[in-house]
Formats: sequence, structure tokens, C-alpha cells
Amino acid sequence: MIKSTGQTLYEKAKKLIPGGNHLLSKRPELYLPEIWPSYYSKAKDCFIWDLDNNRYTDMSYMSVGTNSLGYSNNAIDEKVIHAVKNSNMSTLNCPEEVELAEKLIDLHDWADMVRFARTGGEANSISIRIARAATGRDKIAICGYHGWHDWYLSANLSDNNSLNNHLLEGLSSAGVPKGLANTVLPFNYNDVDGFKKLVSENPDLAAVKMEVVRSREPKKGFLEEIRRLCTYYGIVLIFDECTSGFRETFGGIHKKYGVTPDLCMFGKALGNGYAITAVIGKEAIMQSAQDTFISSTFWTERIGPTAGLATLNEMGKLDSWEIITSIGKNIKRTWQQLATENSICLEITGLDALATFVIKSDDWLKYKTYITQEMLNRGFISSNAVYPSTRHTEDILESYFDALSEVFNNIGRFEKDIDSVEDNLVSDVCQSGFKRLN
Amino acid sequence: MIKSTGQTLYEKAKKLIPGGNHLLSKRPELYLPEIWPSYYSKAKDCFIWDLDNNRYTDMSYMSVGTNSLGYSNNAIDEKVIHAVKNSNMSTLNCPEEVELAEKLIDLHDWADMVRFARTGGEANSISIRIARAATGRDKIAICGYHGWHDWYLSANLSDNNSLNNHLLEGLSSAGVPKGLANTVLPFNYNDVDGFKKLVSENPDLAAVKMEVVRSREPKKGFLEEIRRLCTYYGIVLIFDECTSGFRETFGGIHKKYGVTPDLCMFGKALGNGYAITAVIGKEAIMQSAQDTFISSTFWTERIGPTAGLATLNEMGKLDSWEIITSIGKNIKRTWQQLATENSICLEITGLDALATFVIKSDDWLKYKTYITQEMLNRGFISSNAVYPSTRHTEDILESYFDALSEVFNNIGRFEKDIDSVEDNLVSDVCQSGFKRLN
Repeated sequence: MIKSTGQTLYEKAKKLIPGGNHLLSKRPELYLPEIWPSYYSKAKDCFIWDLDNNRYTDMSYMSVGTNSLGYSNNAIDEKVIHAVKNSNMSTLNCPEEVELAEKLIDLHDWADMVRFARTGGEANSISIRIARAATGRDKIAICGYHGWHDWYLSANLSDNNSLNNHLLEGLSSAGVPKGLANTVLPFNYNDVDGFKKLVSENPDLAAVKMEVVRSREPKKGFLEEIRRLCTYYGIVLIFDECTSGFRETFGGIHKKYGVTPDLCMFGKALGNGYAITAVIGKEAIMQSAQDTFISSTFWTERIGPTAGLATLNEMGKLDSWEIITSIGKNIKRTWQQLATENSICLEITGLDALATFVIKSDDWLKYKTYITQEMLNRGFISSNAVYPSTRHTEDILESYFDALSEVFNNIGRFEKDIDSVEDNLVSDVCQSGFKRLN
Repeated sequence: MIKSTGQTLYEKAKKLIPGGNHLLSKRPELYLPEIWPSYYSKAKDCFIWDLDNNRYTDMSYMSVGTNSLGYSNNAIDEKVIHAVKNSNMSTLNCPEEVELAEKLIDLHDWADMVRFARTGGEANSISIRIARAATGRDKIAICGYHGWHDWYLSANLSDNNSLNNHLLEGLSSAGVPKGLANTVLPFNYNDVDGFKKLVSENPDLAAVKMEVVRSREPKKGFLEEIRRLCTYYGIVLIFDECTSGFRETFGGIHKKYGVTPDLCMFGKALGNGYAITAVIGKEAIMQSAQDTFISSTFWTERIGPTAGLATLNEMGKLDSWEIITSIGKNIKRTWQQLATENSICLEITGLDALATFVIKSDDWLKYKTYITQEMLNRGFISSNAVYPSTRHTEDILESYFDALSEVFNNIGRFEKDIDSVEDNLVSDVCQSGFKRLN
């Protein structure tokens, strides 16, 4: 097989960049080792062109959740280009950050103030710093994935498996100072009793930081009880909505559940593919940012808030969260239908707009690799999840379902031992999770 | 006095954003309280337009050091706009990050690998994580300013004045976990004996992180001795060149001094006003990034490395570091000449391309405010520092010197008690350093 230009570049990249790229979830080894196109030359709507000018339809993560309005959205790009032409930076500040702050406050009537950053890891650390400064306490309880910074990975210092139930397994805490051990305490989603026990044993928590919802719906009373106990013990409740924000509501998904945090973070979809993240919160707590030092040169650049404003404007025009939820429901329904037709045992999880499936089989990782391989052959960037965008039209979905139907049919044959998945794989099996690369 | 549109917006900003903006060094209170234009509508070359369409010449920080090729540089902006039109993000990676990595390695023959981030704080934390993972040690010795993250501010946990000699005074460590106390140990610039003592008492340092040069030149042997002792004790030597990089050489200023670190960071000028920062280093140490988890969604966006490549290309065409150094020399020489003419006692510090002065007087902060006020009246964004860009032409410099000559003449009169600076200030005196705002 002739190596694609993308794979050739990726081989070079692994010699120049430890791990080969800058986001685990975009590593070629997680998709199709030695075959994945790996790099793009351009992208538009839900199409991606690789370095050999092959066009694919993205029926996967839409850039790991950033582009819910499609790639290279004209309305947003026009505003960004305008900002570029009028200078992305100056010794003075950009007015767009004030306007975006106001807009986010308007969307969340419990919140008063905002700080922006440019990555989710930063927004996480800002919210933790503010909560610790506001309370004078150090300990944090967490439930979910909250980035690569020391404060979060320290959960794995005393037990390397502490974070295994929180999206990414086997995260190493190498290089995290040992003095942070036992400052971050994980609890399990929907485990009210476990949370109660944790809080009663650690009433001196600075914050509870959690994803409002990821794989499963919250049980009745789960979020409410967390809110009640945080208020009771004076703990800052932080919702990490970097992933869930703008997927089902115009703002945080907590609006759907009627439970209000003290601080809330947004990222991912907020700038539709441009780097902008935010911490919003109640004034009394947010003002503690002034008691400590949180400051960065590139947080004053203009593209981030400009893209954020334009994205919110487009979302509001379309009710984008309703469109992507409706598409996600359709996808989940059709997945189940195709699975049933082929006697495949499927588990579907995630918000409708972050739809994910797993085939319940010992051969799952092989099947996942096979799906990716066969869908790529049919012109799709595809794995076991679809984060729909408003640009996933009915025609596109139909062609996706047609292709997936063929692939599921073959997997049904593998499950019935009529054929063997191993015989049909042209690459190594995809990796799952965190692993050192050569 | 009628409030400017910028000041009106800033009043609103302080209600929406704790501290009013996102970078201490761009706070209006550090310049001209209640008068500073505060926000820009556009900027080009070294001109900035405020929200009332007043045009100023930036004879100050050029966006705190990011725009050494001038604002809105056409050659760079064209590449950025091209990236925008072809999508800033996708599920696949952008090839520009590999190209920029290769370019930075080409410029530094001791380095093999690169990781990118989007802010200096992040690049700092990445380098610290890598050094700690590589050595299995926790303690860090520092000399210089290295950002807002927990690891750095922890130096002030046991003594709130530890960082006072390192650019910013009075940085609060509120919200930094107490378990980090005594992990970060400051040493003073050019104090070889102090450093030797520190290292002999703490041979288990993971890293020495320092700015190669900021206000003063390194004494003969200072950098060499640090390098020698780091090698001897197996300590990772990290040069923070976020500020010094690309000011006097095509790359790190350590190339000028012939001392080689193990890791080196760049930021600020690297993207000429676009958010891109880098950690470069030796392979054996950089590969430790793979033993830990360092990953972020927005590190995969395309504008950062695209701007970085275009910036390095333009810098290389112009030998920009020579141009800005030559302009800085001219500025420093003329400052001294104007001071001498008016019997003002001036202390000039910093690299030529980061020229800074202080008037040795108890009235210094009043004079600084007065300079800013009078220069603003004359059409200049100006304080007590100039970070020259390649767009600061001779004509612009001449008009700057003419204006400053008048202002220095008046300060000479204040110094001789012929007139009073207080009587001539229309705003409060500017703040210096970190302070809570109302």
C-alpha cells in the first residue's frame, strides 16, 4: 500500500512533536493506524479534504465538538477576517470581549461576571483558582474530564486509577508535584450516596467540579442534592460545560435541569472552531479573581471573542441546539435500527448531540477499527460517535446510513462467525485511550 | 471632561470582568486612570485607532511585545485569512504545526522536538511538567516572570515577597494549594554565589527556569555556571524566552550568549499578534511529555502555527531582530540625550528592543503619569518603555522625540521646582503593579 501524504507527514511529526500532535482525541492511532488521513488541507460545512485532495464527509467528532455550525461557517469567518484586517492585537484592549461577556451573562440569569481564556484546560484552572481563593480551601471533588493541568491529574497521584471512570483511562500523573496528593477527590456520576459520604468526610472542599451530563442522564435528585450540599457546606459548585454547552440549550445544559452552579465553564462549541473559552459566575465568587493573579497576554487577542459573538449570533438565529439534537436523535434511532437488523448488540450513550455507540463484543476494538476503515473507503471520516452540526443535511445522513448499513451487515456476519473481522482489517487495531507512541 | 467611549466601555467592563480585562499590563489604570483610551477599533503598522476614531502612534509596548513586525502585517494576515477560509479546525490535524516545529528546530541546532500551546502560561506549565516527569523530582528554581499558573505563584506561599524581584511585585498566591509550598525557589539574576548555594542545598531540583536576560546583561560566567551546575546535578535547564525570543537573534537570545538550555520557550513575538507559544527541547527530555498527559482541543487550531510560520518568514526576510535592536539603540540614546539636556536623572534598562526608563525621583509615578498624559495629548500611546517594531520609521521616531522633548523639558522644570507636576495632572496617578480594582 502506498502511504498517503498525511501518513508520511505524521511519521515526520512523531519525530518532531512528542506524541505526534497536540490533542489525544485527534491522534491517527485512535482511528486507523498508518492509514488515517491525519491532516486536512481544507474543510467546509461537514466536508474535509486531506493532503491528497480526497474529500470526506465528517460523520465523527466535527473537530472534537468545536464546530456545531459546520466548518468554515461564512458568517463567522467574515467577522473573524474583519477582526484580522483591523489587527488581532494592540496595546489597547479589544471591545469584543466586553460584548461577549455581556452576551453570556444575558444567557444565564444567575451569572454576573466572566473571565475568558483560550483553552479548556485554562478555563478549568481559572475556575479552580477562583474557587480556592474565594473559600480559602484547597480540596476539590470532581466528576468528569477536566483537562491536563496539575490540579486535575493530581487525583491520580495516590491511585493511578482514580480518574478511570471520568472519560479517559490510564491518565498518567508523572510530573505532577506530590504535594498535591489527596487534594482532588473523584466521585461517580449519579452516585448520590457516594457524594454525600465524600462531602460529609470532606466538608472543607473548596469546590465541586463536574460535568452536568455526559454519557447518561442525571438521576432525579442527583444534581439537586449536590447543589443543596454545596450551599450547605459553603462549597463552590462549578459546572464544566466545555463539552455540554450549547448542545441542547442556548447556553449551559444546566438550564434544562433547572440547577444553578456558582461558576460555569464553556469552550468547544462557543467559537465554532476558534479558540475561546469562558468562566462565568456569581459576582461574589468571581471577584475573588482579583485577590489572586490570573493574567495572560494572548487572552487579549481579538479573534476569540469575535468568533464567540458571531457564533452565538448564528446559533440564536437557527436555534442550532435544537437542530443538532434532532439530528442526533435520528442518528441514534437509525444506529439502533441497523444494529437490530443485523443482530448486533449496541449500547448507545451521550447527549443526542454527542451521540456515541459501543458494540457489546470482545471484538469491539476490532469492529471499531473495521467501521472506521470501511467508512473511510466509502468517503466518511467516521468512528463510533457523531457530534452533529447544523450542516449535516438529510441527504448526507442518508448516504451515511446507507454506507453504515453495509458495514453493520458485515459486522453481523463477523458476529455470526460467517466471516472474520481480522481477515478484513488492513491496519493494526486502533488504540483506546492514553498510550506512549513510538 | 467628557468621558471617552473607551472609558465608558471600561466602566462597564469592570462590572462584567473581574479586574476589567485579561492582562494586567493592558489595564488602563497602569497608564492614565479614567482617561486612557482603553480599547481599539483598529490598528495598522504602529498606529492605533480608539473607539472615537482618534489615531495614535504606539510608542509603547506594541501589544506587550507581540507585534515586532507591526500591527496587522499584510504578509502574515494574508496567510491567516487563507487558513480561516480553509477552516481553522477539523477532526484531522493541521499540517502547519509540523512545518513550524521543523522551522524552530532548524533555528536551534541543539533542539530536536517541539510542543505548541496558545499562551505563555501554558507553555511554562508544559515545560515544568516535562522537566518534572523527566527527572521524577518536584522542586524548581526560578529567576524571572513565568506566568499566572499555580506552580509559579506557589513561590509566594511561604513568603509573599519571594517574587518581588522578578518583574511583578506583590503577586498574590491566594487560591494556590498549600501543598505546593517550598516547591519553587527564586534566585536573583547575576547572583552566581546565591545560585550555587541554592543548588548545593537543593541538588534535587527538577528544573532551573529563568529568563536569559531582561533588565540587565548577564555577568561574565553567570549563564555558563548555571549551565554547568544543571548538567552536574542532572537538573533540566529551561530558558523562558517568551519575551526575549526574536528580539536580538533569529530565535532565542541564548544564541547570542552561546549557552544552551535543555528546554526553551517562545511566545509573544512568535506569531506577531496571533496566539502561538512553543516549548522546544532536547529529544531525551521532550519525550517525557509522553509519560504524562498534555493535551488540549484548541492547541489543534490552525491560525497559531500559520501565523508563526508567516512571522518567521517575514522576520527572516528583514532580519527584523537587527532592525528593532537598532531602533531601540537610537531610542535609548535619544532618551539619555533629552534627559541630560533637561537635567533629569534617567535609568535605562532592558534589551535595546525592550527599552525601558525610570526617572530617579520620588515623584516618578507622577512623572510617568504626566508623560503618558502629555504624550497622549500629542497623539502618542506612550509610557516609559518602547518595544520597537520594524514599522517604527525614522519620521515616526523624529516626531516622537520632538514630543518627548517638550515633555522632558517640563519635567526638568518640575525637578527644579519652577512648576509642579501635581498641578499639571488631570487624572489620578497611575498604578504600579498588581492591585485589586473597584
